[in-house]
Amino acid sequence: MTGDERTLIEANRAFYEAFRGRDLSRLDKLWASEHEVAVIHPGWAAVHGRGEVLESWRRIIEGPSPPDIRCSAERPFLMGDAGFVICRELLGGGELIATNVFVREDGEWRLVHHQAGPVPPAAAAEEPGPPTVH
Amino acid sequence: MTGDERTLIEANRAFYEAFRGRDLSRLDKLWASEHEVAVIHPGWAAVHGRGEVLESWRRIIEGPSPPDIRCSAERPFLMGDAGFVICRELLGGGELIATNVFVREDGEWRLVHHQAGPVPPAAAAEEPGPPTVH
Repeated sequence: MTGDERTLIEANRAFYEAFRGRDLSRLDKLWASEHEVAVIHPGWAAVHGRGEVLESWRRIIEGPSPPDIRCSAERPFLMGDAGFVICRELLGGGELIATNVFVREDGEWRLVHHQAGPVPPAAAAEEPGPPTVH
Repeated sequence: MTGDERTLIEANRAFYEAFRGRDLSRLDKLWASEHEVAVIHPGWAAVHGRGEVLESWRRIIEGPSPPDIRCSAERPFLMGDAGFVICRELLGGGELIATNVFVREDGEWRLVHHQAGPVPPAAAAEEPGPPTVH
């Protein structure tokens, strides 16, 4: 793993730590401020704009059932000063799979986008079988 | 819309045209060859590697029910020589929401990643209501 891949993974972990820790101030710092941002929460329409994106996190974190979330199976993908991480999100009641897109601002990886959606449990995914629906 | 945003949207449309047209040769050309690629089909584990990614498209396109898919509500996000498009995927039986990540190779936008997942219909999404689950 290269240095850039390592720092990308670290930025991704910092995101989940802030999420799990319900640390909105830290989440604010982890999201890009010089690029447009968006988020697609599971089963929801896209949320656009920094204010709306952070507000969506606030509502989840301060909501009646903020998730005890952890990430696993992270894989980094680099494209110069941009990159993304694919990872599984382990929740109390199941798993999601997420794409987190980052851009480098002032030498630090900052989030510009997050999409999470349903995924079969990792054990089931190991079983053979092609995707037959898009 | 800037020139880069326009070409990013065009690359995204070319992807859906190739998908709808079941044009695997065109899909092959639209996916990056100098960067690592991945795809997360709805409800499936991540697929990694160019060969596996293209094989997953082949199975969908040549499968028993290849979708009649169109994209709408595209929004481009630029990060220099990388970018992504968020769009809705209109299928015969419903809608999905997708993130398509691109990188510039030899002056052309090429796909490096696609994640699609469930979304409420656009009409329902207009109704007020915060995301209460992650």
